[in-house]
Amino acid sequence: MNRDVAKRAAANAAVALVEDGMTVGLGTGSTAAMFVNALAERVQQDKLREVTCVATSESVAGRAITMGLRVVDLINEIDLAVDGADEVAFPDLRLIKGLGGALVREKIVAEAARRFIIIVDSGKLVDRLGIHVPLPVEIIAFGAEQTCRRILSLGVGARFRSLPEGGKVISDNGNPIVDCYIGPERDVAWTNDLIRAMAGVIETGYFDTEIERVIVGDCSGTVKQLIAPAKKMVCRDVN
Amino acid sequence: MNRDVAKRAAANAAVALVEDGMTVGLGTGSTAAMFVNALAERVQQDKLREVTCVATSESVAGRAITMGLRVVDLINEIDLAVDGADEVAFPDLRLIKGLGGALVREKIVAEAARRFIIIVDSGKLVDRLGIHVPLPVEIIAFGAEQTCRRILSLGVGARFRSLPEGGKVISDNGNPIVDCYIGPERDVAWTNDLIRAMAGVIETGYFDTEIERVIVGDCSGTVKQLIAPAKKMVCRDVN
Repeated sequence: MNRDVAKRAAANAAVALVEDGMTVGLGTGSTAAMFVNALAERVQQDKLREVTCVATSESVAGRAITMGLRVVDLINEIDLAVDGADEVAFPDLRLIKGLGGALVREKIVAEAARRFIIIVDSGKLVDRLGIHVPLPVEIIAFGAEQTCRRILSLGVGARFRSLPEGGKVISDNGNPIVDCYIGPERDVAWTNDLIRAMAGVIETGYFDTEIERVIVGDCSGTVKQLIAPAKKMVCRDVN
Repeated sequence: MNRDVAKRAAANAAVALVEDGMTVGLGTGSTAAMFVNALAERVQQDKLREVTCVATSESVAGRAITMGLRVVDLINEIDLAVDGADEVAFPDLRLIKGLGGALVREKIVAEAARRFIIIVDSGKLVDRLGIHVPLPVEIIAFGAEQTCRRILSLGVGARFRSLPEGGKVISDNGNPIVDCYIGPERDVAWTNDLIRAMAGVIETGYFDTEIERVIVGDCSGTVKQLIAPAKKMVCRDVN
């Protein structure tokens, strides 16, 4: 339950960033769900009549609508996207996300957002990604077994995410998800590049997307904000 | 009609590479269709009872079955994949493929194949890719307009492929396709990397996959075979 206090504290801090007129990206997962609650409350209390939301999963869309939020399709840029994470590497602020199965839409919304904010409880901070949680990878159903085998051939553990009652978990986009166990001896970014380069791989849950800040709640209900280091400019001569 | 002579010559040369017991990848497009004809003929004449096929599109699968070929799902590695191309850059043997809308499955089959063979008529050889044909890109339906706009923001022309009767073309995987017009002033490989890195982009029709050879037919019915230059080893220190 203390963890819920931490999550709620982070969600409340993020909700303070919302202004009327904004299009807000809603994440998927337990912490992001607390942001949806807090947002619905704030929209009502402060009469923010011009807030619209874009949801990263069908279930979050349904929940937000039930709570009185206006949900639209992703057509235009998003002003502020707020989402949880399964692991956050500190201090470089890269993430693993998508254990909820919504990684593709989460990354699309993150990249469509002018400001991308992560909210987590302090238990999600790690020195190194991919040791405690698998890297989720959404793949094309056609040739899925072969794609999974190619991931395994990298020396990475890989298995289809399955339903408790049997059968593969299928994402909102209609595709299976493979959970990849990278282990401590492998670099996540490098392994991610190899996986992502494969035909048949749609997207992974490794986020090195530009993150404005990570809001970390702790069990006492206080928050600290981690700001991403300045993005390095990368130049490449194309002539 | 002369072009058909060229395509058929290339297809016949490729069919000579098939041996009994092989799993053969079948491409999509007019030249690949001639390979399917030639393969069905050869399987019957030479009694190759143990040839199985993996098809890169539903339409090719249907056609192959009608012609008596055995079509299976892509579960295991493919011995030999034969496909056409929309443009082949010579001498480096990179391709643009997928104007038939099957680019994702085509690339999955190409990468699952021990040997990947391209068959074209000589009109497909170019000095530089992307000048005469667009680069097809399959994207996730969620946020498709926003993804298309992000491609446009690279300075690349981009529009959804549409049906003659209106509405978007949808791939066999259930996704829309954006045709990207790169133009002569931009490097295709570099632009492709930028597009492929975007969340929401599944795959592009730019192939720098390992190609064993390109079989080029001409209008007199003769063929020449272009062999890919030796692949450079790329080493990267991950420690």
